[in-house]
Amino acid sequence: MRISIAGIFLILFATSAWAQQPPALRSPEVDSARRVTFRLRAPKASEVSVSGEFIPGSQSLQKDDQGVWSVTIGPVEPEIYNYNLTIDGVRTIDPNNPNVKSGSTPGTIASVLEVAGVGPAFYDGQAVPHGEIRTHWYQSKSLNALRRVTVYTPPGYDQSAPTRYPVLYLFHGANADETAWTRFGHVNLILDNLLAAGKAKPFVVVMPFGYGVPPGTPASAPGDNTALFSRDLIEDVIPAIQSKYRVSTSRDQRAIAGLSMGGGESLGIGLNHLDLFSYVAGFSAALRPPDFPKTFAGLVANPKEANQKLHLLWVGCGNQDSLFAPAKSFSAFLEDHKIKHTFRETPGAHTWMVWRRYLNELAPLLFQ
Amino acid sequence: MRISIAGIFLILFATSAWAQQPPALRSPEVDSARRVTFRLRAPKASEVSVSGEFIPGSQSLQKDDQGVWSVTIGPVEPEIYNYNLTIDGVRTIDPNNPNVKSGSTPGTIASVLEVAGVGPAFYDGQAVPHGEIRTHWYQSKSLNALRRVTVYTPPGYDQSAPTRYPVLYLFHGANADETAWTRFGHVNLILDNLLAAGKAKPFVVVMPFGYGVPPGTPASAPGDNTALFSRDLIEDVIPAIQSKYRVSTSRDQRAIAGLSMGGGESLGIGLNHLDLFSYVAGFSAALRPPDFPKTFAGLVANPKEANQKLHLLWVGCGNQDSLFAPAKSFSAFLEDHKIKHTFRETPGAHTWMVWRRYLNELAPLLFQ
Repeated sequence: MRISIAGIFLILFATSAWAQQPPALRSPEVDSARRVTFRLRAPKASEVSVSGEFIPGSQSLQKDDQGVWSVTIGPVEPEIYNYNLTIDGVRTIDPNNPNVKSGSTPGTIASVLEVAGVGPAFYDGQAVPHGEIRTHWYQSKSLNALRRVTVYTPPGYDQSAPTRYPVLYLFHGANADETAWTRFGHVNLILDNLLAAGKAKPFVVVMPFGYGVPPGTPASAPGDNTALFSRDLIEDVIPAIQSKYRVSTSRDQRAIAGLSMGGGESLGIGLNHLDLFSYVAGFSAALRPPDFPKTFAGLVANPKEANQKLHLLWVGCGNQDSLFAPAKSFSAFLEDHKIKHTFRETPGAHTWMVWRRYLNELAPLLFQ
Repeated sequence: MRISIAGIFLILFATSAWAQQPPALRSPEVDSARRVTFRLRAPKASEVSVSGEFIPGSQSLQKDDQGVWSVTIGPVEPEIYNYNLTIDGVRTIDPNNPNVKSGSTPGTIASVLEVAGVGPAFYDGQAVPHGEIRTHWYQSKSLNALRRVTVYTPPGYDQSAPTRYPVLYLFHGANADETAWTRFGHVNLILDNLLAAGKAKPFVVVMPFGYGVPPGTPASAPGDNTALFSRDLIEDVIPAIQSKYRVSTSRDQRAIAGLSMGGGESLGIGLNHLDLFSYVAGFSAALRPPDFPKTFAGLVANPKEANQKLHLLWVGCGNQDSLFAPAKSFSAFLEDHKIKHTFRETPGAHTWMVWRRYLNELAPLLFQ
């Protein structure tokens, strides 16, 4: 095939960086009144709708005579939201939006809409000292698998005198992975901002891959997810972290928290290992009330000792979350057994909006 | 609203982790003969096709009487491929596949298919010592922006005596970002494997965000992407890296490489800064032949000095890539001006398959 010089430049125009045309359609587009327009070119589609954390249910897009579908909603409160487009019955992402959320199962695939407010939000990157995110690959002996763990070190960690830092073990939810708390939870930016404001003590955050069984494993399959993950955490992750990082090995300086599935893990593991953890938190935790007496038998056997050992037990859930009722049951169960704890009922559903706020609320309470 | 106990358990079943049902459809599914089946439930769609790096053009899926579309292709060679589904004319991802590729513009959104061979590939995670990935947020003074840079440190970096490591500055292509070389290029796993086999020297890899102008900026807009990025690299990134890491500050121990847009940058910056770099490489580089005399005036002004300073100048391109002709022109230009270099023509197009192989080929040549 012979290609003319003009042809080469046409090809270059199409493939090279600075020569690239902007996407023909902007979606989502946020105007100055925080109204959001979604657009999709789909002349052959017969039905397009958007669903997302900013609206109940879904909203239809309307087609113009160019085959471009659109809808404008709002004004929308400043936040980071997940959403999906449904095209002729197929739930997918917004193909014009580069900001895509993904994880360890298809259940978490979504597009991400960021709506800015007047000033920066508590989860936004700001002109403050920044910590670091470190990712380690390790061979888990307990699970016989190559796994990854993400670690946040606070600003100045590398420069500081060789003191040992307190450490928070922080778990993601179902369908996600060890990158979720940094990618969607903005854990590093939230802590950077709290530290710059003098509102939290510096600590290291360790975010392992929170599955013991493969993601998507049905409930009926053999294998206890929390028990398997617990082995990886205690036998592989914690020793590796303690040998690599200047973290305290004292239970007084160790916290455990998680969201959803990870909240079930942090409460299940943390409250059964008060020898290892003194701060325990669950965000919108996946809990089964009938299991409480068995799962937390050790905890409630000696409430006085538990209360002495627990510097903080924090349970939070949004009251629009389907897991709110179990969270409330758990608080009542703790109450019945005289286990001191904080129960935070907040607005919100099962979303990262809630979990970012919980982290922002919990961090200042740790290691004080 | 009153919810019965059974209702609560239904909700739990639907939302909690280990209770989750597996996705109803497996897509893509690879069988033992490496044939790949794509599936999509879309009873309302009238047309579904798959396009990807494993087939030329696209292939239609066929609908069964349950509204499930499918097609089986292959056998497919062991590799990591990008692909897209097109549903009623809308190019999108495979919503049943959690492995999603994204970047800084919509142009890079795709699903990822991994086809395994008999043994592990050179880019697979294996039971060898692993390096680390570190992510820094920094305020770029030259660009007045909060940016990120990704850094690979080889196994043993933290434990080793305080020697200084050689360093490779490695750039992503258009539409991507500073996570591309780790997420899609497997840079860390490739280097871990080479190091374990004794085939490369340990070095640090620095992967900045490679845009000087915003991603998607049209060619007609003001601002020279490479010049702006060059300032960030030289005035912000390199000094920050040298203050944080035990990297050599000698030009003899500094390499620069990149792919596509980043290849244009690595050649453009590297060959104009032989005071800073002694190993220079471009993978499928975005190059404009008419600009060569101006862009590389300094290089060709004194070929003898350039050849003394350059420990390696490596230019590679796949011969099915639309950028192959410019790469060949560049090699001819260097030849004309008696600049020593390696020109590698290989099979392949403008894909990560090619770039992973190039990294695997280049790394053993560096710092020898």
